[in-house]
Amino acid sequence: MALEAYLRERSQLVDRALDRFLPRSTAKPATIHKAMRYSLFAGGKRMRPVLALAAAEACGGAVERALPAACAVECIHTYSLVHDDLPCMDDDDLRRGRATNHKVFGEGIAVLTGDALLTIAFGILAEVEPTPRHPLAVQIRELASAAGSERLIGGQVADLEGEGRALRGAELRYIHQSKTAALLTASLRLGAMSANVTPAKLAALTAFGEALGLAFQVIDDILDVTQTTEKLGKTAGKDAQATKSTYPAIYGLDASRAEARRLTARAHGALKPFTRNGARLREMADHLLAREY
Amino acid sequence: MALEAYLRERSQLVDRALDRFLPRSTAKPATIHKAMRYSLFAGGKRMRPVLALAAAEACGGAVERALPAACAVECIHTYSLVHDDLPCMDDDDLRRGRATNHKVFGEGIAVLTGDALLTIAFGILAEVEPTPRHPLAVQIRELASAAGSERLIGGQVADLEGEGRALRGAELRYIHQSKTAALLTASLRLGAMSANVTPAKLAALTAFGEALGLAFQVIDDILDVTQTTEKLGKTAGKDAQATKSTYPAIYGLDASRAEARRLTARAHGALKPFTRNGARLREMADHLLAREY
Repeated sequence: MALEAYLRERSQLVDRALDRFLPRSTAKPATIHKAMRYSLFAGGKRMRPVLALAAAEACGGAVERALPAACAVECIHTYSLVHDDLPCMDDDDLRRGRATNHKVFGEGIAVLTGDALLTIAFGILAEVEPTPRHPLAVQIRELASAAGSERLIGGQVADLEGEGRALRGAELRYIHQSKTAALLTASLRLGAMSANVTPAKLAALTAFGEALGLAFQVIDDILDVTQTTEKLGKTAGKDAQATKSTYPAIYGLDASRAEARRLTARAHGALKPFTRNGARLREMADHLLAREY
Repeated sequence: MALEAYLRERSQLVDRALDRFLPRSTAKPATIHKAMRYSLFAGGKRMRPVLALAAAEACGGAVERALPAACAVECIHTYSLVHDDLPCMDDDDLRRGRATNHKVFGEGIAVLTGDALLTIAFGILAEVEPTPRHPLAVQIRELASAAGSERLIGGQVADLEGEGRALRGAELRYIHQSKTAALLTASLRLGAMSANVTPAKLAALTAFGEALGLAFQVIDDILDVTQTTEKLGKTAGKDAQATKSTYPAIYGLDASRAEARRLTARAHGALKPFTRNGARLREMADHLLAREY
């Protein structure tokens, strides 16, 4: 199957599972269930859950057994977007061309929508069939840790506290590691755990996820600058004035490109223990990282 | 041990366990951990965790094994207060005489503090020693369901949507059942599960929790009216103008008192299957319900 067809098929599988795991939009009180579904089915790329499924396959597991983990991480990802978009955080009105949750349902309901998606993520993960090497307790702690105050939430705290001032490189790296790489790595790990992954392969997936997450963000930062430059017809000097720190703003465009290449190579290198089974993960890394930067 | 000494001793036990489960306040990023601890150690009565411990004891279990469940429900309770106090919800500046989380740390950090407490609750519950009748999956789903969009969060949604208009009795009952009774019942059930409770006793504790939670709220509503009356030196007509619906406002003071007595009797009746082991739960019900109303 070509990658595009594979990604479409897998994200539809995730969508159908999410639809099953979530209360109907008519369940009482209807507002919260409409609001949860509004943000969960808003056209996301399902990158994290599809990585979870691909990791399970790379470990010789069945896709179906990885669905609770895949849906759980997508609920966590969506909750974090709903809360990040709030006026007291990044204050965004639009996401993927659609009004953000709080613009449609109000701020109070948006806070509760995020809370409900975060809560149900753990209920969904509890549906997983534990494997001999990875009991449910380990999997729940994995998700709680990746989504918790020292990883995903910690990254958002650092982001919030860094607003309006220039960040140092280490600070920006911490934010990217926490906000992006942590949940991405947990997605791969939880998918693999559903396939009873060995410790060696779990370590390889961890290294892959960390490099992939960082590389993805560095490339995003580069594209942000170069696309903006193109769009505005100006040189890249503008980003220095922006309130949001980026890799190019701190290190310059050349050094950022070198870092992106280094991280991409590291991501690919991490997949060595996976021979033929790792093909989809390699393709996905190419898909995410081989953008023109 | 007299009840007061028992409650003090038990809530200290909970405090010490919470202190162990939570990251240090110096853990990076320090802001979020300071904020989590600010609200978690704000002088709460620890009603839910102590009920969890008492339920475990009533089922012949060890208090220590119920501590993860007790701490998890207290984290859920605290997160719900932090989010309920936000300007976009109830907009409260003070709680127990202290500035609310968002007044001290700002709204963005307060949202993240609630998120972090909600997330860690599941990580803490995963530390529980599962029992033959109640595997971890059942316990995680119990907490996710009680705290989820159809119970705790659902009650807050209904509360938010009912603001500024007179509620019908069934609506008020739904809010109390969801916002108070659901988590209180889950506290008892999770505590009991840590003691491998039998299905019959679990059902008894469920009935106890539901009656106790509702009785507690009805009495709170009554005291709200009668205390206000006393304080203002006016008759109880004022509550009719208030934006917040109460039992006395809907049913009148006499009918509300009769309902409180009925629910209190039902709570005590539910404890019948517990003979001597249930003494502490009975005492706690008296403590919570035998207020002058």
